[in-house]
Amino acid sequence: MTSVLDPIALAQALIRCPSVTPADEGAMDILQRTLEGLGFRCRRMKFGEIENLYARRGTARPNLCFAGHTDVVPVGDAGAWKQGPFEAQVIDGLLYGRGAVDMKSAIAAFASAVAAVGDVPGSLSFLITGDEEGVALDGTAKVVQLLASKDEVIDHCVVGEPSSSAELGDMIKIGRRGSLNAWLTVDGQQGHVAYPHRAANPIPVMIDLLARLKGRVLDEGYESFQPSNLEVTNFDVGNTATNVIPAQAVARLNIRFNPAHKGADLMAWIEDEVAKADAAFKGKVSVRMLLSGEAFLTPRGDFTSLVAEAARAVTGREPELSTTGGTSDARFIRSLCPVVEFGLVGATMHMVNECAPVEEIRQLTAIYRTLIERYFERFS
Amino acid sequence: MTSVLDPIALAQALIRCPSVTPADEGAMDILQRTLEGLGFRCRRMKFGEIENLYARRGTARPNLCFAGHTDVVPVGDAGAWKQGPFEAQVIDGLLYGRGAVDMKSAIAAFASAVAAVGDVPGSLSFLITGDEEGVALDGTAKVVQLLASKDEVIDHCVVGEPSSSAELGDMIKIGRRGSLNAWLTVDGQQGHVAYPHRAANPIPVMIDLLARLKGRVLDEGYESFQPSNLEVTNFDVGNTATNVIPAQAVARLNIRFNPAHKGADLMAWIEDEVAKADAAFKGKVSVRMLLSGEAFLTPRGDFTSLVAEAARAVTGREPELSTTGGTSDARFIRSLCPVVEFGLVGATMHMVNECAPVEEIRQLTAIYRTLIERYFERFS
Repeated sequence: MTSVLDPIALAQALIRCPSVTPADEGAMDILQRTLEGLGFRCRRMKFGEIENLYARRGTARPNLCFAGHTDVVPVGDAGAWKQGPFEAQVIDGLLYGRGAVDMKSAIAAFASAVAAVGDVPGSLSFLITGDEEGVALDGTAKVVQLLASKDEVIDHCVVGEPSSSAELGDMIKIGRRGSLNAWLTVDGQQGHVAYPHRAANPIPVMIDLLARLKGRVLDEGYESFQPSNLEVTNFDVGNTATNVIPAQAVARLNIRFNPAHKGADLMAWIEDEVAKADAAFKGKVSVRMLLSGEAFLTPRGDFTSLVAEAARAVTGREPELSTTGGTSDARFIRSLCPVVEFGLVGATMHMVNECAPVEEIRQLTAIYRTLIERYFERFS
Repeated sequence: MTSVLDPIALAQALIRCPSVTPADEGAMDILQRTLEGLGFRCRRMKFGEIENLYARRGTARPNLCFAGHTDVVPVGDAGAWKQGPFEAQVIDGLLYGRGAVDMKSAIAAFASAVAAVGDVPGSLSFLITGDEEGVALDGTAKVVQLLASKDEVIDHCVVGEPSSSAELGDMIKIGRRGSLNAWLTVDGQQGHVAYPHRAANPIPVMIDLLARLKGRVLDEGYESFQPSNLEVTNFDVGNTATNVIPAQAVARLNIRFNPAHKGADLMAWIEDEVAKADAAFKGKVSVRMLLSGEAFLTPRGDFTSLVAEAARAVTGREPELSTTGGTSDARFIRSLCPVVEFGLVGATMHMVNECAPVEEIRQLTAIYRTLIERYFERFS
């Protein structure tokens, strides 16, 4: 049984909930009611202050899941918006509002596609979190853990992140690099700059350490991936006195790495370099690290081809299968099943006056509908 | 005609004027009245808000000058002083107070020595400023300029800075290194850490530039001087976001250099390295520099031997002729005549509970008296 669900109206209803992480402001309730109206059985999970939802229609396999998030980033300079960021008005064919691109419209598009398709020989599901833009500790990571512990099977997943680059359908993300942050500290000995032998300057030690870390070529790339990259993102001393050697220097770096590396190996390498610097210095060199996610790749195959085919069928464009860009919740879902990311053009995401063309939201709905229909033709 | 002037009483009177740079609080008046009482003709010079004094007794050559300053550094943690920093009390043989070491006691010691010596076959003079601990723009530098413009001749000068290291008379400073500060700025392009090709990270550029500057061996030492030394004294970015490549990095360095270098040559070298870094970077690399003073050396000879001899005659110690330490007003006076620095032990200078043993102030008076007497035996 099919029904008609306008994706624009649902996107507007979701945008009108100012669900800046970790707030929900009713967004998850709207989605739950909509999905229940389409025959889904909804399971809400609250971790900490975060709302999460897993909804499924059908019990048979294969189970095709759509994943996404109802939370949004802060509005930024509120006065610079043409209209209120949560008004969700359409002006000249553009739907404005925080989340219009990232990614309430994609949730609405998939729900609308599901309504149009009706029953399928298998299951459709939604995995929606309210903590993707924040620290992501009480969101998809925990939902995935819970589903795994209950032997819930998901066969394939599409994450509705704005994967398109310049035009709708030009890019599908089939993997993501891993991300590792390291906070480095060098504790030396303060002193007068005219008597350096009585002090221990931490700055040259930090410079040498960072130069050595930055100097390593991590790799030359890996299958569909760019070369892994290390960026020094901060370096602070805060010494205002020209005649003083300071006591401490801190710095921070981030590594975006492809599947040629495991996070643990990179952390061991950094710890080793830090230990060497520490051994050679009369002060102390230390590091704290946080691994945000391992690199992953969904190999090209029937599923990635199907998503590309659906996009091409509607837009006429051949999408690039890419692994560029930042992290997403796909890094958690990949432990359950093959996962790809496909959604709107990301140009205005996180910016003031975030907006999506109404026509592209409708095209995305058509792509998702094509994807669902052909998925169950091929994978049932 | 000789007279008796108690150096402790004069030192106390001077310390009781809270003359924290640029304040004078009557210190210069006390000194002027004292010197006029000893037959000196006093010339006061006020530059900006700074009091300066040049006093001379006699018109013949040679003219032996004592140079020093009545200003003092701030008291620091006032509550940590055993007594008020401007009370100038003697406790257990120690004269406490800001300026007890650096350097009101030395002024008092030289005045007391002058009183005891009486008339000399030549001239004695005092060059005293109220801006040595501050920016030193309206102090000795301008007095020296003015004296030179009026063809005032000074044959030799002793600066009363606390030159002694562990014990009174163990060190005379016969030169000082030059000092150059440089403020470096790298302006790049902010961006997302996952898309480094769209940004221009200023931090690695600054790291490379500093490593190159720090990597040059400036020299292996020069006559009595330590090797020239470059210290990086600051490095700031101030980027709190782990996923952002920052737009700007700033750093600062200080070079203490011996007479193997001229400030202009070092500045040209730094400018050249900055220009190379700028040419290789799509952002902008720039530098601002301030030369605080050139290196200078008063060659070992009759005058340096005489000061050493006077110290040895009183203390029994053989003083080291040294060029270590920070800058002093000697860097300005050296354009007029040979200059050395000799005074108390510097251990408590600039610290809370700055204090000088009364006995050492009396010994310093005896050394200065011996110096004056033998100077006019040798140089008249």
